[in-house]
Amino acid sequence: MPSDPGSELNSPSTADDVPADAAASRTTRLDVVCVGNALVDVLASATDELLTELDLVKGTMALVDHVRAAAIYDRMGATTEASGGSAANTAAGVAALGGRAAFLGRVADDGLGRAFTHDIRSIGVAFDPTPTPAVPGEVVSGHCLVLVTEDAERTMATHLGVASEFGAVDLHDGHLASTQVIYLEGYLWEQPTAKVAMRDAIEVAHRNDASVALTVSDPFCVQHHRAEFLELLDSDLELLFANEEEAMMLFGTSSFDAAVDAVAETGVLAVLTRGAHGSVVVTASGPVEVPAAPVGQVVDTTGAGDLFAAGFLYGITNGLRPEDAARLGGVCAAEVISHVGARPRGDLRALAVEAGLFG
Amino acid sequence: MPSDPGSELNSPSTADDVPADAAASRTTRLDVVCVGNALVDVLASATDELLTELDLVKGTMALVDHVRAAAIYDRMGATTEASGGSAANTAAGVAALGGRAAFLGRVADDGLGRAFTHDIRSIGVAFDPTPTPAVPGEVVSGHCLVLVTEDAERTMATHLGVASEFGAVDLHDGHLASTQVIYLEGYLWEQPTAKVAMRDAIEVAHRNDASVALTVSDPFCVQHHRAEFLELLDSDLELLFANEEEAMMLFGTSSFDAAVDAVAETGVLAVLTRGAHGSVVVTASGPVEVPAAPVGQVVDTTGAGDLFAAGFLYGITNGLRPEDAARLGGVCAAEVISHVGARPRGDLRALAVEAGLFG
Repeated sequence: MPSDPGSELNSPSTADDVPADAAASRTTRLDVVCVGNALVDVLASATDELLTELDLVKGTMALVDHVRAAAIYDRMGATTEASGGSAANTAAGVAALGGRAAFLGRVADDGLGRAFTHDIRSIGVAFDPTPTPAVPGEVVSGHCLVLVTEDAERTMATHLGVASEFGAVDLHDGHLASTQVIYLEGYLWEQPTAKVAMRDAIEVAHRNDASVALTVSDPFCVQHHRAEFLELLDSDLELLFANEEEAMMLFGTSSFDAAVDAVAETGVLAVLTRGAHGSVVVTASGPVEVPAAPVGQVVDTTGAGDLFAAGFLYGITNGLRPEDAARLGGVCAAEVISHVGARPRGDLRALAVEAGLFG
Repeated sequence: MPSDPGSELNSPSTADDVPADAAASRTTRLDVVCVGNALVDVLASATDELLTELDLVKGTMALVDHVRAAAIYDRMGATTEASGGSAANTAAGVAALGGRAAFLGRVADDGLGRAFTHDIRSIGVAFDPTPTPAVPGEVVSGHCLVLVTEDAERTMATHLGVASEFGAVDLHDGHLASTQVIYLEGYLWEQPTAKVAMRDAIEVAHRNDASVALTVSDPFCVQHHRAEFLELLDSDLELLFANEEEAMMLFGTSSFDAAVDAVAETGVLAVLTRGAHGSVVVTASGPVEVPAAPVGQVVDTTGAGDLFAAGFLYGITNGLRPEDAARLGGVCAAEVISHVGARPRGDLRALAVEAGLFG
């Protein structure tokens, strides 16, 4: 692990600074390996009354088993399906910026799993799963039932399906051994076998001089796994992503400023996002505030955090200073919230150039 | 068959005019049974270059086998999936207006088939298929690969899958015997077993005093089955749907006016649609021009004809005069082209009331 949390990630940006060998190895190395739940989003319009009947709390995400998932699906209106999953969205964003990304996650050999695999590969992300044999209705690929109410709020019920069995067999040592960063989704800590596999992944990554990044994913993940996340910060992470609320919960502070101070003490490079208020990058030399990128109309905030992480990860593995990487994160987040869906539609690379971040 | 093509369809609109028995039977009777290919749309963005490489002609629909479908899908970008199918969209529209609709079509026991079944039922359409056992990659539910270029044009490759095996076993005599209208998709004439089944369906419908409606679906269908469509007009149909181009091809005329004259001679109630120029309803008492409904921004014209048919069919089975039914068709078409997707999103019933068509 580097003593300066920024040094390994924030590598020199011009080829002149890099020995020929290192430059060659850089060109074949992946920028980021993202690890998380492979999920297909299944979206439908819904009324507040339906949410109440289904015992769902508006604006939240609940994990549900296959019986409850089937019961909710039965009551949902006509659906649209599109690949999602937090870390998978981030991998898609890195690839859309022109980066080299891979994804690790578990799918079943069913329609959802094949669509997920097609979609993430189609954007240029390396993904080589060993699908679990499917049993219709019981052993299925993970999916997130998204109920969209008229106020544009999203209420989610996620049935992890085979994603919940993510384990050592799903780690791809080839990818883990040849990446600059591995990026882990906090949601995985909900799953015992995945948690063990993450330990292995961290070890392989560090053995191969990769940095380890964690997003704490959701306030409920922080609530469930606070001690483990703090322990990871203490000894295993080079990079942390959290939003304002999550950061305050993680460090048990009552103000955002106190959370910034607490994360600074860990010495880990951290990016704390604040929605429309931009982000704060906490480096070894102190916190830097980065304003949010301008956005016309906010249509759907799904994927904002995932795409912010994509921009930051691509930036930092491609020669940007952390504060500029955070600006790129903001540009990517602004794109994804300007349309429905959690994956980029516009040309992220062109937006990055437009923002003066790449020539 | 009624001698006046409009008389059976355009039934009295007030309960006072109807004997008590008939009124009771009307409340349990279906308005429309729609018969067609059960298809799920699989959409992705594409470039003109990709269309050329894939040997697809921009703006057209091609039928493809499973090998070619797989090859096209492999080259497509990240996809979104949503239920479609021409007659199925019409059934969804009738139900969205508050009508009683059923759909007949063949699906496989796979993810696409289950999604199709869920979606059409969720809007209130009766659909009770006997799914064909699926073989991944080979025996699959029908789907339409839709490549959307930047100019918003759609280029489609349809793999009918098991929909191509639609046959007598898929007819639901209960539905066919208790509906006011059966509505048949011209696309079905491409398939030998479906063609035979359509003969049976027409017989069952007529035996039970239902009217038979046909949409010729597509210029290529008219090209392939012109003689058969003319024969149907001669002896089996009470209602015909065609757009301007299809009508001119069907009657072999070089002007639209001549096509109107030709259809008038058949004595069959006909609705000829002209896009932004509205429609012409050809009744026993002559043609009536009906202007198109106003629409803000045309976002996606997919489903315009299907939803026009839905409005017309609902109108005519619920007491509207043919010209008012055509106005309702225009209102429904305007709604579906104002957003992406081939099924209604807004409250069609409210739009019909707003247009003064229902109290």
